[in-house]
Amino acid sequence: MTKPTIKAFIFDVYGTLFDVHSVQDTCNKHFPDKGEAISQSWRKKQLDYFFLRQVMGTYEDFVTVTRESLRYALMENGAQWTTEAENELIDAYTHLTHYSEVEGVLQELKDKELVILSNGTQHMLDSLIENAGLAHHFDSVLSVDDVKQFKPAPAAYTHALKELDVKREEVLFMSSNGWDISGAKNFGFHTAWINRGHAPTEQLGLEPDAEYDDLTGILEWK
Amino acid sequence: MTKPTIKAFIFDVYGTLFDVHSVQDTCNKHFPDKGEAISQSWRKKQLDYFFLRQVMGTYEDFVTVTRESLRYALMENGAQWTTEAENELIDAYTHLTHYSEVEGVLQELKDKELVILSNGTQHMLDSLIENAGLAHHFDSVLSVDDVKQFKPAPAAYTHALKELDVKREEVLFMSSNGWDISGAKNFGFHTAWINRGHAPTEQLGLEPDAEYDDLTGILEWK
Repeated sequence: MTKPTIKAFIFDVYGTLFDVHSVQDTCNKHFPDKGEAISQSWRKKQLDYFFLRQVMGTYEDFVTVTRESLRYALMENGAQWTTEAENELIDAYTHLTHYSEVEGVLQELKDKELVILSNGTQHMLDSLIENAGLAHHFDSVLSVDDVKQFKPAPAAYTHALKELDVKREEVLFMSSNGWDISGAKNFGFHTAWINRGHAPTEQLGLEPDAEYDDLTGILEWK
Repeated sequence: MTKPTIKAFIFDVYGTLFDVHSVQDTCNKHFPDKGEAISQSWRKKQLDYFFLRQVMGTYEDFVTVTRESLRYALMENGAQWTTEAENELIDAYTHLTHYSEVEGVLQELKDKELVILSNGTQHMLDSLIENAGLAHHFDSVLSVDDVKQFKPAPAAYTHALKELDVKREEVLFMSSNGWDISGAKNFGFHTAWINRGHAPTEQLGLEPDAEYDDLTGILEWK
């Protein structure tokens, strides 16, 4: 198909640019042999809590949700922990590893408007991107915390539209998270699902416009 | 503590009165050795889809969500299936097994107002309760489908309050689902968490008023 004109490339962060499971090393340091299980439980619960808080109308920011979901994950895995360990694990979220193709893809798109839209707080996002040396690639780093609405709520995507001088159909939205792609598609963005884990397509009647194994695929939208 | 006066006992259904994983036999019939994995994926995805549809504002009823989540679960587990098998699995949701203590507890509470409030459709709920021979125990069977809002959205619990002649603090709400207890507590019901799986308490700042291994514990609220 002929690709529509894209004026803004909007990227999700956690799972899309950065590997959330790179916290596993820090988990293993404090809880030997439980790192993988804790990391998996943690991410699953973190997503649950975004959705549940959004449904209940009890928004708390990314740092709170990430801390609460970590505590649940630690209990679920029978771990005993100190405040120091907890803080170190939260801090690990600002030192995640980015996927190997990310820098090259961003460099190729350097003449385009490149934007981040994430459930993270502004501070968490700025720290993470700065620590990874990626900050100079982006024109805007947008946090849903400005509107206190988590993706995939339509209001979260509206936030990006209000901040950028584009129409929703001029946006290509990238995420590795199926639920985020569903939300962005539901909102009216063009969507590219970076299906790193080769998961089935979400059965929500909202197919992505494109699906790629990693971010290099999006270069055909240049 | 002295228990407050409870005028209505409101029960969740799936996981609380009935074992959702009793579909496993039907799963195993069509997909030998994959029954447990499919059943687990199915339930997890069903809950995700309730929450995601609620967050995105794209409500579809329980039957649709249950079918869509089943399809995802089958794909996730590498299963090939026929429409016939799919329909049989959906039908299994109206023939779930109820937990062994349910009838005795309902009988003990026969002088109380006993109510069901579920994300199921009216038809699914009526069929399930009728098939299990439990219909005569309940004064009302309420479906969130009447208001097109899934629990744990406050609007879903409001529906029960509007249908019953009680105040929210005169309600004891029972669920085995931690997220449902969080939602009911957030709404202002008294809550009894039937923690059948000995899971950690949800870390959402909404502790249940009571926690029991099964439903017999609620008799102390009589």
